[in-house]
Amino acid sequence: MDNFTQSPDPAQAATEIGRFLIDVDMFPVFFMAHFCIACLMIREDSKDLGPKFQQNHPMASWVSSVLTSLAGVIVTNFLFGDAVVDIIKEDRLIIFVTVIWYLMNYGPFDLLYKVVRMPPVYIVMAMLQENLRVRCIFQALEQVGKAYPGAIFIVLLAGVVNGNGYGYLKIVERLIRGKWTPGSNDFLEVTYLTKSSVYASVAFMLQASRFLLISVEITYLTVVVLFMIFRLLMTVTPNKDPLLPLEMPICKILFGTAEPKKRVSGGRMENGRVDDKKKH
Amino acid sequence: MDNFTQSPDPAQAATEIGRFLIDVDMFPVFFMAHFCIACLMIREDSKDLGPKFQQNHPMASWVSSVLTSLAGVIVTNFLFGDAVVDIIKEDRLIIFVTVIWYLMNYGPFDLLYKVVRMPPVYIVMAMLQENLRVRCIFQALEQVGKAYPGAIFIVLLAGVVNGNGYGYLKIVERLIRGKWTPGSNDFLEVTYLTKSSVYASVAFMLQASRFLLISVEITYLTVVVLFMIFRLLMTVTPNKDPLLPLEMPICKILFGTAEPKKRVSGGRMENGRVDDKKKH
Amino acid sequence: MDNFTQSPDPAQAATEIGRFLIDVDMFPVFFMAHFCIACLMIREDSKDLGPKFQQNHPMASWVSSVLTSLAGVIVTNFLFGDAVVDIIKEDRLIIFVTVIWYLMNYGPFDLLYKVVRMPPVYIVMAMLQENLRVRCIFQALEQVGKAYPGAIFIVLLAGVVNGNGYGYLKIVERLIRGKWTPGSNDFLEVTYLTKSSVYASVAFMLQASRFLLISVEITYLTVVVLFMIFRLLMTVTPNKDPLLPLEMPICKILFGTAEPKKRVSGGRMENGRVDDKKKH
Repeated sequence: MDNFTQSPDPAQAATEIGRFLIDVDMFPVFFMAHFCIACLMIREDSKDLGPKFQQNHPMASWVSSVLTSLAGVIVTNFLFGDAVVDIIKEDRLIIFVTVIWYLMNYGPFDLLYKVVRMPPVYIVMAMLQENLRVRCIFQALEQVGKAYPGAIFIVLLAGVVNGNGYGYLKIVERLIRGKWTPGSNDFLEVTYLTKSSVYASVAFMLQASRFLLISVEITYLTVVVLFMIFRLLMTVTPNKDPLLPLEMPICKILFGTAEPKKRVSGGRMENGRVDDKKKH
Repeated sequence: MDNFTQSPDPAQAATEIGRFLIDVDMFPVFFMAHFCIACLMIREDSKDLGPKFQQNHPMASWVSSVLTSLAGVIVTNFLFGDAVVDIIKEDRLIIFVTVIWYLMNYGPFDLLYKVVRMPPVYIVMAMLQENLRVRCIFQALEQVGKAYPGAIFIVLLAGVVNGNGYGYLKIVERLIRGKWTPGSNDFLEVTYLTKSSVYASVAFMLQASRFLLISVEITYLTVVVLFMIFRLLMTVTPNKDPLLPLEMPICKILFGTAEPKKRVSGGRMENGRVDDKKKH
Repeated sequence: MDNFTQSPDPAQAATEIGRFLIDVDMFPVFFMAHFCIACLMIREDSKDLGPKFQQNHPMASWVSSVLTSLAGVIVTNFLFGDAVVDIIKEDRLIIFVTVIWYLMNYGPFDLLYKVVRMPPVYIVMAMLQENLRVRCIFQALEQVGKAYPGAIFIVLLAGVVNGNGYGYLKIVERLIRGKWTPGSNDFLEVTYLTKSSVYASVAFMLQASRFLLISVEITYLTVVVLFMIFRLLMTVTPNKDPLLPLEMPICKILFGTAEPKKRVSGGRMENGRVDDKKKH
């Protein structure tokens, strides 16, 4: 690969970086980052279920962590009529998730948990996870595009589900941990993860159908870079949806003026308990 | 088709009308009526979720409307092991639903919404919808009857699910809109829609197996006419189940005396709130 | 079969008994015992839903009883991508369940219900049910082992789901009866039924891969005998998990000290009502 030194041409360099990102093996580095963040999320989200949730309910913790780690594949398999558990056949992957889950929850001195929570480590892992997210969307579009050639909505759906699988599995995953939150889901409050998956899928579809006159490598690289920038913004600032300011005017034109969000989401019931705000 | 004028024979005329109803393309007129009523129902059922539900949650409103419109196919695909999202591949259908959904919820001056709610328009659409319902049952029996020849229960199940798919999807569809009603479902309170689907399925099965010595056209026409009469009764009178008076004596013999319905359904929890009746 | 008299050799006799248990037709005796216990359980579990639940809601009672009776097959079909309702094609089986369900709930003088509840009858039926449970696990391992050769986790999962299918269907089955219990499931509180299925599956897998130097007949017989002993213990004593004392030390080493169970499960919400203990 002495091309890098011979050609200072930025376009060719970008193409090569894009090609590298399309081809690089996601296992084990990118997967590890994704699994660590998934296990961290489950542990954090279980804090309101009791002080020692993972000690009291190791099975629920493990099943939730595995489901979250493989959410995209599982939801896709469910929707597209394949065996839901098909991915479980990859023993290597399951053992890998299990080791990370174990170290994240019961490891000596809680070392891995503390390391993953450190901001610089977390940010690097989040960047790697965005790479995996783009890869999942990209591959899903290729596969479903072959199975349903020319069908736009179903290909788009495959992209969304692979870019934000957990968003649609969350309600079931939480139920496994005994946490029932019927008042919120990713359809009611469309998250950045869903919307970015839609936009990336549209970009890849336009590129594949030659509407976008740039190469697949450049498209892929652009999506990755944008995903990483937005994720960085979401991690270091309290802003949870950097796309919202751009979308609000269009939403207003299409659907009319919405009420302020707080009045709608306030007072939603979670597992029988009404939010504190409303009680007082 | 100058047969109509040449033969005043009512039997032959009925056969020809039956044949016409079996063959006529359901797209777009019958589908439009069905989609309009489905979108209307979702909008009406969302009124207790806030005054501007469809403005605040367009995504949930759209997903719910699409699911409701295609409930029969989706539940059938789920139960019979086909890809749940298979129907989404019909881009034309999805765009058609989307346009109707948009006009029903955000259209200029709420025109379509107001028109569909006008009693004469609603009744005509309900009549068209009954035609579609019979067609769905009829086609489901044919398809599943081929896949499972001689199996009675599974063919019956296919008929029921296609005649009242929404009844079994409702609990999930409502969850998407953040509305959780665990205390009621179409198994607990068997609706007219379920029962009429069972009776129609039995009639078609008897006809197909030559127990009923009348032609398929006459059977089909009879079912359509009965469905339309009952639907008309249900729309213009407060009676929500015209078959109940005929069935109650049989239920009494088979299952014993049931308690008055009100005591059972009163006080059911909906999303954490107990019905007002019981509180006071 | 004069082998029994000619050979007093206990090893050969055990092999022959094991072979008999592997081959004996489960229909109708073993199935009948299983269906009776399933229908009994549904009736008992519906007592808090009103005094005449099965008279008021025959449809929900029937659907729940059928689902519970066939839980293993249905959950397996769902997870492994087969048609969920495939088993419904066995008309003979459905009629058989239906007859038992009818006699258990509406039979003359409640005779079958009273007979099945008699301790000696119940114990014999429970013993027969354990035989069926081992057979289901054994057959599931064979089938899935062929479809996914060498994959350990997915074969294990198949064993667990077939040995304790109802545990994972319960939350949906109860919802059909209008009973919503989000705070408890078989992942949160791992039951004896799940764990015994895991151990039996591991034993069968070790035997099949020649790690266990005993014949399949002896392995099968040992599992059946152990299952029957533990079930007997669970039926006649209040102990609901005879394996727990053996497992607790291992759990402590692996996952750390858990809090006393009562503090965690106390106060869980069931259908909106908080447990009495916490209220007072």
